[in-house]
Amino acid sequence: MLVNCAAYQDGRKLGDIRKEEISEYVRRPECFVWVALKDPTAAEIDEMAGEFGLHALAVEDAQHGHQRPKIEEYGDSIFAVLQTLQQRGEDMHTGEVDVFVGRNYILSIRRDTEPGFAAVRVRAESEPELLRNGAGFVLYALMDNIVDRYFPIVDALEVELEKIEERIFGADSPRANIKHLYGLKHQLMVMRHAVEPLIETIHKLYGGRVPPVCHGTQDYFRDVYDHLLRVSQQLDELRDMVITALSVNLSMITLAENVLTKRLAAYAALVAAPTMIAGIYGMNFKHMPELDWTIGYPLSLVVMLAIDA
Amino acid sequence: MLVNCAAYQDGRKLGDIRKEEISEYVRRPECFVWVALKDPTAAEIDEMAGEFGLHALAVEDAQHGHQRPKIEEYGDSIFAVLQTLQQRGEDMHTGEVDVFVGRNYILSIRRDTEPGFAAVRVRAESEPELLRNGAGFVLYALMDNIVDRYFPIVDALEVELEKIEERIFGADSPRANIKHLYGLKHQLMVMRHAVEPLIETIHKLYGGRVPPVCHGTQDYFRDVYDHLLRVSQQLDELRDMVITALSVNLSMITLAENVLTKRLAAYAALVAAPTMIAGIYGMNFKHMPELDWTIGYPLSLVVMLAIDA
Amino acid sequence: MLVNCAAYQDGRKLGDIRKEEISEYVRRPECFVWVALKDPTAAEIDEMAGEFGLHALAVEDAQHGHQRPKIEEYGDSIFAVLQTLQQRGEDMHTGEVDVFVGRNYILSIRRDTEPGFAAVRVRAESEPELLRNGAGFVLYALMDNIVDRYFPIVDALEVELEKIEERIFGADSPRANIKHLYGLKHQLMVMRHAVEPLIETIHKLYGGRVPPVCHGTQDYFRDVYDHLLRVSQQLDELRDMVITALSVNLSMITLAENVLTKRLAAYAALVAAPTMIAGIYGMNFKHMPELDWTIGYPLSLVVMLAIDA
Amino acid sequence: MLVNCAAYQDGRKLGDIRKEEISEYVRRPECFVWVALKDPTAAEIDEMAGEFGLHALAVEDAQHGHQRPKIEEYGDSIFAVLQTLQQRGEDMHTGEVDVFVGRNYILSIRRDTEPGFAAVRVRAESEPELLRNGAGFVLYALMDNIVDRYFPIVDALEVELEKIEERIFGADSPRANIKHLYGLKHQLMVMRHAVEPLIETIHKLYGGRVPPVCHGTQDYFRDVYDHLLRVSQQLDELRDMVITALSVNLSMITLAENVLTKRLAAYAALVAAPTMIAGIYGMNFKHMPELDWTIGYPLSLVVMLAIDA
Amino acid sequence: MLVNCAAYQDGRKLGDIRKEEISEYVRRPECFVWVALKDPTAAEIDEMAGEFGLHALAVEDAQHGHQRPKIEEYGDSIFAVLQTLQQRGEDMHTGEVDVFVGRNYILSIRRDTEPGFAAVRVRAESEPELLRNGAGFVLYALMDNIVDRYFPIVDALEVELEKIEERIFGADSPRANIKHLYGLKHQLMVMRHAVEPLIETIHKLYGGRVPPVCHGTQDYFRDVYDHLLRVSQQLDELRDMVITALSVNLSMITLAENVLTKRLAAYAALVAAPTMIAGIYGMNFKHMPELDWTIGYPLSLVVMLAIDA
Repeated sequence: MLVNCAAYQDGRKLGDIRKEEISEYVRRPECFVWVALKDPTAAEIDEMAGEFGLHALAVEDAQHGHQRPKIEEYGDSIFAVLQTLQQRGEDMHTGEVDVFVGRNYILSIRRDTEPGFAAVRVRAESEPELLRNGAGFVLYALMDNIVDRYFPIVDALEVELEKIEERIFGADSPRANIKHLYGLKHQLMVMRHAVEPLIETIHKLYGGRVPPVCHGTQDYFRDVYDHLLRVSQQLDELRDMVITALSVNLSMITLAENVLTKRLAAYAALVAAPTMIAGIYGMNFKHMPELDWTIGYPLSLVVMLAIDA
Repeated sequence: MLVNCAAYQDGRKLGDIRKEEISEYVRRPECFVWVALKDPTAAEIDEMAGEFGLHALAVEDAQHGHQRPKIEEYGDSIFAVLQTLQQRGEDMHTGEVDVFVGRNYILSIRRDTEPGFAAVRVRAESEPELLRNGAGFVLYALMDNIVDRYFPIVDALEVELEKIEERIFGADSPRANIKHLYGLKHQLMVMRHAVEPLIETIHKLYGGRVPPVCHGTQDYFRDVYDHLLRVSQQLDELRDMVITALSVNLSMITLAENVLTKRLAAYAALVAAPTMIAGIYGMNFKHMPELDWTIGYPLSLVVMLAIDA
Repeated sequence: MLVNCAAYQDGRKLGDIRKEEISEYVRRPECFVWVALKDPTAAEIDEMAGEFGLHALAVEDAQHGHQRPKIEEYGDSIFAVLQTLQQRGEDMHTGEVDVFVGRNYILSIRRDTEPGFAAVRVRAESEPELLRNGAGFVLYALMDNIVDRYFPIVDALEVELEKIEERIFGADSPRANIKHLYGLKHQLMVMRHAVEPLIETIHKLYGGRVPPVCHGTQDYFRDVYDHLLRVSQQLDELRDMVITALSVNLSMITLAENVLTKRLAAYAALVAAPTMIAGIYGMNFKHMPELDWTIGYPLSLVVMLAIDA
Repeated sequence: MLVNCAAYQDGRKLGDIRKEEISEYVRRPECFVWVALKDPTAAEIDEMAGEFGLHALAVEDAQHGHQRPKIEEYGDSIFAVLQTLQQRGEDMHTGEVDVFVGRNYILSIRRDTEPGFAAVRVRAESEPELLRNGAGFVLYALMDNIVDRYFPIVDALEVELEKIEERIFGADSPRANIKHLYGLKHQLMVMRHAVEPLIETIHKLYGGRVPPVCHGTQDYFRDVYDHLLRVSQQLDELRDMVITALSVNLSMITLAENVLTKRLAAYAALVAAPTMIAGIYGMNFKHMPELDWTIGYPLSLVVMLAIDA
Repeated sequence: MLVNCAAYQDGRKLGDIRKEEISEYVRRPECFVWVALKDPTAAEIDEMAGEFGLHALAVEDAQHGHQRPKIEEYGDSIFAVLQTLQQRGEDMHTGEVDVFVGRNYILSIRRDTEPGFAAVRVRAESEPELLRNGAGFVLYALMDNIVDRYFPIVDALEVELEKIEERIFGADSPRANIKHLYGLKHQLMVMRHAVEPLIETIHKLYGGRVPPVCHGTQDYFRDVYDHLLRVSQQLDELRDMVITALSVNLSMITLAENVLTKRLAAYAALVAAPTMIAGIYGMNFKHMPELDWTIGYPLSLVVMLAIDA
């Protein structure tokens, strides 16, 4: 579905344009076109590939979806794949945003990703002096928006871990704890796979030789990199604590076994000896002098109590 | 066994040729020869080594088979070893494809690998503008085909793990779970050893100094690299979860011990005290006043029930 | 809150200046301005950003706080983020110090950090020959002060671990040990995240191309790096021992189970056999010759004792 | 002990020479001398050091033995230390081969290593066109021979692991399994320390700047490197599986505990309740109506059976 | 305390000199001064700092002690920190040697280190052709001596581990084993921290750009590096085996639990069923025909024995 299609010049929006006009505007060196698709059909992507002249391999990736995050250069254009994340119950759901960036166009394709990037357009259009940097700045604004969405999710996972920790040390519901920790580990892994490949690849946009479309915005991409590192650090931290929590939970379970066995042993000590004594005086030997003693019975009870004490 | 032997020019097939004609066609600078062997004898390999003038060390590797994946340059030719994988029951079976690539020839030798690469030939011949890149493009098409075969296997392993996970949290058949997880770990390792060495070595074909036969197809080899990274990421993920699942399974077993011991303790508590009381009133002391009470018996039963409650 | 605002020339303090005069002094090439803020409002930061002409992205980071430690260059100025640490009970509390350094200014913003850096000012002003190096030397003095505050904290954690170790091998309070070790691991992680990112980034200030403001003070920044490595080494050591201590604690718990089960088995052995013998002679068979023996009763007791022995 | 001492020219053996003639032949630029010592005395090494003019530090290493594998350059000569391995029962025995290579000599010293390198001499002399490369090719032939001896050993360890795996999943002899796995781990470590340092160092002989004596044989040393990588991969695989097998064995032991406790609980359930009922009807109360019932006894037995069912 | 203070020229000792003469000899380009301090006071270090013109930061480190091993260059002089180790009972004690090396002086300061370096002086003076290399060679001789002292310590730890291993597999004293393994791990860590930082830093003295004072002795420093690698490899090996031994010990403890529970179950099986049968025939029902049988009693005993068998 075509969500947006507009032309920009000197950091200001010229206006919405029709799909058919794209290639015309792309030919003008002083302006750039910004197109956004949402869960597009193969035909829609092919149409755009034609208008913008996109590389076949990148288009194939965009058609298939489910790529790992990456930033690839094809000649003087960039193909970026980003993952969006959404926590649904105990599952971490992955969406995808593919971005094609050329000298004077940017095409974003989002899949399974809500909300959209209207906020990014509003922000970009409100800062014309930055938007003047062209398609490279729009790429930054999109990436920044996607990465900023990671923070509340990782914070939510942190809160979840804290809840489980409390239950662990309260020796509470160990079975559920194991399951939650395992689920948490899985979610962290999904997140990690959205973040790590991006960290490895984003340096191309701000360090060393930078693609021409990103000239002038290096400091901004370094800022995204820094945010990614923060998320990554939190993920590492959480992962490490989840593993430790799993092992701590096992220790608590083993400890609970100790308590149970101790109780069992105490019980045995309390009941078994009196039972034995009662058994002895329940024997039917003819000649058991104690049985005739008047104090025999109370004495035997006293002995039982004495042993238990 | 010779599976295929054809000459190509300008991206189009000239026709099948006889083995004896190979060296003649190889000498023509404007065309290239594509030969495919399947589980060949040593003599067949030696024959090809003569026709193409292959390096002794590479030929030795191809004769022995069971190499680790690698891409080596001998002068201006390339020797690539790839592993194919097949899941047979709980085993991961490894096949091998050795590829010799020169400026105007490509020789592929497959072992224990089904299906063959007829599909690769069909694809390559249907894209003459790409096939025009020569032997380098054929190498890409072979690698792409082999790597794409990894995806359904790793997906199958993922499904297997999910099944085991369900059984673990259902505290179901822990012994079988351990065995399956161990088997899964083994399969992941076999896969990993097909994938990882290739990742380390494939960059030679698209980054930095690229062998002449791969000129013009760098973007394609980078695409294979990207696919390998995706497989590798899934393998890492699975491996990590298998290890965690093993430790979770141990926790569940320990937890089951708790439940058993708790039941044992409950049982002891329920039965041992009444047994002791019954023992006491089973003693044969002459002077046990309670024994003469009419309510002695029901009272003792009530006491037993009261203790159990 | 503005804590300090002074101008320096030739390594000596010219005197305190008013906020409004800052930009005036910054314009003089031969002197530098040193400003310190404490938990400032957004307005205060914006005011300083105006006076010093700070980069928007760095200012944004300083506004938000909660950054990971880093040292970034913006043109010929430096933006450094450092974390301060404070142990409060079982929690490791994190404060933050943001430092903007230019050719002739240094602006430090501290948050949640006590005590302040009065000691740094005193030290710097007492060494005019070093202070002559300008803002770069002040940056060093601040970093050195912050890093030196890490040592007593890591030493305190070391002492805590030693206390827990003693309790572990005394088989004392295993539940509390697990909790303390887990807490310790958490504190180590917080510390680690203050130290590690700094180690990765500080080399920019003494090795290879060094920012102009740090010229002449490279040996000093290398010294800070060396101190960071020492802290980092201690943290690694502690982390490793905490993990081992957790596993050792689990071994001790499992061992305690052995002791309990052994006791249970001993108890059973002691009591069960006599109970069985007593039961046998408690049977009501008419024809049990032993019952009529005079030595039947004492003999049975002797047998019971003999079995237990 | 001097095993061999011969001179070569143009890839062909000139003949055996006397020790005293060595320095004379070494001086001739067109030929090279190949000397092999076995478990030599210090004096024998010193004598050779004099004939060949070896570096004092390298000679010292050769005297002491027990070095880690390495390849060091001293001026334009090479000093290589290799480890040979031999499985003796459950121990992995380490031998050592020290090789000094100069422009026109090669001296190999083997210790605790059987069999010797007669096969290497035969092979080298049967390929004069390769032997023409001089001392560098002999170094390759020696290394190739030593590395090829690693394969059967690592395969044997693999078979051992498979045997232990079977026993683990058959819940068979857990104590012996632990011991074998521990021993296996130790053997893998010894092997690893023969292989890993060599991998790190061998690249000097084929990549980047190559020592003059190895010119023309780079492809061969890369082949050795490739073989080492294969061994190393198998070792890593084995090590990983041994660790997992150890943890799986622990899981199986814990699981066996479950089975035992379950049996104990079943036993208690089966016996304890009837014992209690029997105890109740063994009480001596005067007024126990059931005792007078004719069906009292069979009824009580039926109740006991009913409970057990 | 001043241990030694002598001047050398052309590899030969000129004679002991007074402290006050140091700066005079240091000024002569053709000779060098060798001073050794032991546990010096701050004043003694300051005095030397003055005589040799040492850098303030290095002097500060030497005053404080307890540095991590490092080799730093200050201008054309070197400051090296080395750690000496001593096993005292179950503790690994750390001493420190700080060395200042300039073009024509070497100052060593040892703390908590016995024995001293008289042997180094004897060795150096006995090899004038090497001592002619000047202060750089003395630095090597000191480092070589310190590193050689690591070998017997790591060997002793190896012997300790072997003793513990025997006890583990003999299922002997598991509690003590845990404690010893934990202690061993701690000692390994202390050793590791003496060795690892040195490995990272020593390459400066033999590879790439080498400080002028080390020219001509690169091969010797590479030899020290090689020795450090050997120690490091042994430490890694030991650490890995200690961790495995800890987990093996846990497995043995869990296995012991199995044995105990099995014994408990056997006991219950042996005693509980006869006790139940005895209980049944101890019931007081009027109508229990078996009680009147003459073979009732022996029959019941036979049944009990039959069940136990």
